[in-house]
Amino acid sequence: QDADSARTRKAKPIEWFRKISLRGYAQIRYNKLLETNPDLGCEQCDKSWGGDNGFFFRRIRLIVFGQVHERVYVYIQPDFASSASSSAMNFAQIRDAYFDVGLDKDNQWRLRFGQSKVPYGFENLQSSQNRIPLDRNDGINSALSNERDIGVFVYWAPKKIRERFSYLVSSGVKGSGDYGVVGFGMFNGQTANRNEGNDQPHVVARVSYPFRFGEQYIEPGLQAYRGKAVVGSVSEDVAGINPDFEYLDQRVAASLVVYPQPFGLMAEYNVGTGPEYDPATNSIQSKDLKGGYVMASYMARLQEHVFIPFVRHHYYNGGKKHELDARSYRVNEWEIGAEWQPFKAFEVVAMYTVSSRRYVDAARPTNFQEGSLVRLQFQVNL
Amino acid sequence: QDADSARTRKAKPIEWFRKISLRGYAQIRYNKLLETNPDLGCEQCDKSWGGDNGFFFRRIRLIVFGQVHERVYVYIQPDFASSASSSAMNFAQIRDAYFDVGLDKDNQWRLRFGQSKVPYGFENLQSSQNRIPLDRNDGINSALSNERDIGVFVYWAPKKIRERFSYLVSSGVKGSGDYGVVGFGMFNGQTANRNEGNDQPHVVARVSYPFRFGEQYIEPGLQAYRGKAVVGSVSEDVAGINPDFEYLDQRVAASLVVYPQPFGLMAEYNVGTGPEYDPATNSIQSKDLKGGYVMASYMARLQEHVFIPFVRHHYYNGGKKHELDARSYRVNEWEIGAEWQPFKAFEVVAMYTVSSRRYVDAARPTNFQEGSLVRLQFQVNL
Amino acid sequence: QDADSARTRKAKPIEWFRKISLRGYAQIRYNKLLETNPDLGCEQCDKSWGGDNGFFFRRIRLIVFGQVHERVYVYIQPDFASSASSSAMNFAQIRDAYFDVGLDKDNQWRLRFGQSKVPYGFENLQSSQNRIPLDRNDGINSALSNERDIGVFVYWAPKKIRERFSYLVSSGVKGSGDYGVVGFGMFNGQTANRNEGNDQPHVVARVSYPFRFGEQYIEPGLQAYRGKAVVGSVSEDVAGINPDFEYLDQRVAASLVVYPQPFGLMAEYNVGTGPEYDPATNSIQSKDLKGGYVMASYMARLQEHVFIPFVRHHYYNGGKKHELDARSYRVNEWEIGAEWQPFKAFEVVAMYTVSSRRYVDAARPTNFQEGSLVRLQFQVNL
Repeated sequence: QDADSARTRKAKPIEWFRKISLRGYAQIRYNKLLETNPDLGCEQCDKSWGGDNGFFFRRIRLIVFGQVHERVYVYIQPDFASSASSSAMNFAQIRDAYFDVGLDKDNQWRLRFGQSKVPYGFENLQSSQNRIPLDRNDGINSALSNERDIGVFVYWAPKKIRERFSYLVSSGVKGSGDYGVVGFGMFNGQTANRNEGNDQPHVVARVSYPFRFGEQYIEPGLQAYRGKAVVGSVSEDVAGINPDFEYLDQRVAASLVVYPQPFGLMAEYNVGTGPEYDPATNSIQSKDLKGGYVMASYMARLQEHVFIPFVRHHYYNGGKKHELDARSYRVNEWEIGAEWQPFKAFEVVAMYTVSSRRYVDAARPTNFQEGSLVRLQFQVNL
Repeated sequence: QDADSARTRKAKPIEWFRKISLRGYAQIRYNKLLETNPDLGCEQCDKSWGGDNGFFFRRIRLIVFGQVHERVYVYIQPDFASSASSSAMNFAQIRDAYFDVGLDKDNQWRLRFGQSKVPYGFENLQSSQNRIPLDRNDGINSALSNERDIGVFVYWAPKKIRERFSYLVSSGVKGSGDYGVVGFGMFNGQTANRNEGNDQPHVVARVSYPFRFGEQYIEPGLQAYRGKAVVGSVSEDVAGINPDFEYLDQRVAASLVVYPQPFGLMAEYNVGTGPEYDPATNSIQSKDLKGGYVMASYMARLQEHVFIPFVRHHYYNGGKKHELDARSYRVNEWEIGAEWQPFKAFEVVAMYTVSSRRYVDAARPTNFQEGSLVRLQFQVNL
Repeated sequence: QDADSARTRKAKPIEWFRKISLRGYAQIRYNKLLETNPDLGCEQCDKSWGGDNGFFFRRIRLIVFGQVHERVYVYIQPDFASSASSSAMNFAQIRDAYFDVGLDKDNQWRLRFGQSKVPYGFENLQSSQNRIPLDRNDGINSALSNERDIGVFVYWAPKKIRERFSYLVSSGVKGSGDYGVVGFGMFNGQTANRNEGNDQPHVVARVSYPFRFGEQYIEPGLQAYRGKAVVGSVSEDVAGINPDFEYLDQRVAASLVVYPQPFGLMAEYNVGTGPEYDPATNSIQSKDLKGGYVMASYMARLQEHVFIPFVRHHYYNGGKKHELDARSYRVNEWEIGAEWQPFKAFEVVAMYTVSSRRYVDAARPTNFQEGSLVRLQFQVNL
């Protein structure tokens, strides 16, 4: 017979729904309560902060994932709240699309191909589904638009620590997931969903280890990357340091996480060099940058409810290479608020933000905005 | 051990495919048979009506949905036949993305967050998978592009009526689904997948009750909304009544549905005020609007086959706030046709349309089109 | 009761995950190794060949499919690596979206509605998941951007040959799937995800039969299509042969496939007429075209590993109607390489390409590029 199964390589097939799973989450924001300055906003944080805004989808994520072979893990995560252009909202665009190929039978060494978070910064790696404040800190998040890029990465973690990384998410203490005890990668360097601007990849390296002291977990980490970035969006008449608008792009960061059991503390800081708009000369210069944050939280559980008050301060002084003219930033921001989970499937975050932001480009060469507001988020987990 | 399950909040997990389901449908159109006037079309109805057109996807829908917690229901419906720009067809864009949080154990009171149909009009709420004519009536559908907006809604229906709403869909008599006996909401007001234009939400309220007389169901309803809409797409040199092109946007509608058991009758009518292009002054004015429809149908079942002949007349006199220059419309249309379902998974609709449409904007200040054509649709349900 | 199931048409429902399945694959490319000429590229093949490029997603496919009724089969395949515009990468856009309605109980006759591969050319029909070389040959692939169009098709194959088509994929010898022994179709003619340019459909017909000689399968085929195509993307000042830029578009092709058991041979050739840019007159003319390829391969299996070395030569002389100005091409290309599958879920292709390409349009009226490079692809199958 044609379909002689002895001649095929197929074993008795696993049902597709046991090999592949689907999950997701969605976040709806409202940033208009007690807003004192509608000219204050943050493009990278939340496009519905400031201006004429109302209810807004920050994220709609559906994730297809699975260990499709004992050595191959796949993770494909489109975001259905992406804009195709300024007037075409809520299209589906890839965030993650990667697959890991295990180099040993326990997948302690994994080779990762695809678009994935670049292993730079704990908060960057922690899922937005789990993060307590609504947005990441500008200091470290400015390194990578959408935290991601396309490339090849290698991760190593011993089996026991792989289980620990997994537990630090499943137990609800908001771990980063498994980006290895040691990670190394090569990636294009223009950040997620953007084409390479030159032929040279960036390189990144990271070390992070979740220590256990009795019931308490503490995870310190170190990471750095380096490459040449091309500023892709430049206003007319703005000059660069070379005709290709290509700049040294390098950073090093230190991270410390004390998991909330019940008291939590997170602190990260980074320094580096990158392109930054200079209003005095109307040009994009290569400049030093620095910034980070410190956050305290407390995780209270009452029957099925989880309640996590927190306070965070963050700071940034530098450019954002992926924004118009490598926009220059000076950010000082305080946030105080709480996350409330009445049940696993539904979360509310309310936070009061006091912000001071100077962000300038060729169109707005002086632009200092201060203000405060209450920010709300409603999240569903499926 | 790290993964000590006693310390986690997780109960024995439900398999993902029993918590989340996937279904969908797709519609292919052909509007070129016996067409008497290729300049006659309807932007909101079907972009492949008139002009240089052929086979066309009107909708490709995949829906991820589920009661992910006894109090949380999720519904995410992208459409894969959306245009990202005029030359980039068949991209995935969100239609629905909402979650309901039940306020009681039977979810009789539900709080809805997200983008969803605005509870205004029975035909607007009825799924296009179930509607008999190919397109909704201009009179009421002109209220909301894609019938939807983002916001927060609250719905109430007693348990028994929730079951009845469900039965009116599952039995094939083409109900609207459960938008409550009473519904109330706040939403941005610029319609689906468009950013808020001002800081003020719209409000909507609706009452609808499916009465039972023996075997026959009859559902009367009343609904109204009010807010300030901003006309987002304005030709050069067209004036507004204020610099922001912001207009009062309010409507009230009455609905009556006699479900086809086997003879069916539907009628809806609405009046209101909204922006409308005025060709005499080349400006967008605030004007009254009115319109509605009446449709008769008959549902015949023969073995597995279902055959539903119908006739509809609809009428509209007013503007469409979401189109260029709040385009002005005068519509009179007759449709006669039939839906044929040889089996549940496959449906064909053929209808003969006789249409008279005046639709004018700054580019076409006089534009009256009359004509007739046969319209075909092939639908698959999965 | 409302939910009296005796009154509904529903039988005991099949669980959704047994009716609908999900699978997919993704391909990551790197085209910068040993590249001798960065000005050499191929728009239809791979946008990351030549220029400033690095790691690149060629395809990210998730497929929802299933026999949803004994007579209805559905196949919806979005690609998540599509560009919505030049700076908006990795959006989801439909490739396939079709449903087959069987006209007999064995679905030997099938009517297909929707966007699907046009039955023209064996390599065109073979999935990119299975094809050995990274890109299709220009000669035949130039017929249809993305190999697809929207329309209505009819396929016929006897039950036994339907099983054989299925076996030729499942056994790993890289068949085309079942496009019938005989196929016929009407489609818009502007290729996938583009609007019809005129009111006249194209027509296509194909015959292909997989003969069996002992253990060896050999499949010869013949196919042809004809219609009027409109060149949609034309530079300013370029003239056409008529004001609508409408051209006769017709081709006929012969195919021969000797499946790799273990030695394989494939050859296809086509001739026809279509629009082609003429640099001497800066106009788009109606011109003859011709081209094809021949490929030899050898399939070696070693335990779970599959290793397939191959060599291919292909040639094209003609225009590409779906590119700017119906760009004119003269292509001569040699490829030698191998596909390696260490396990079913993961594949690597490496190939050395020696290419000579002249491709000219109004912006580049002289453009002859020669060069060589190593091309890499990493593929996951889920």
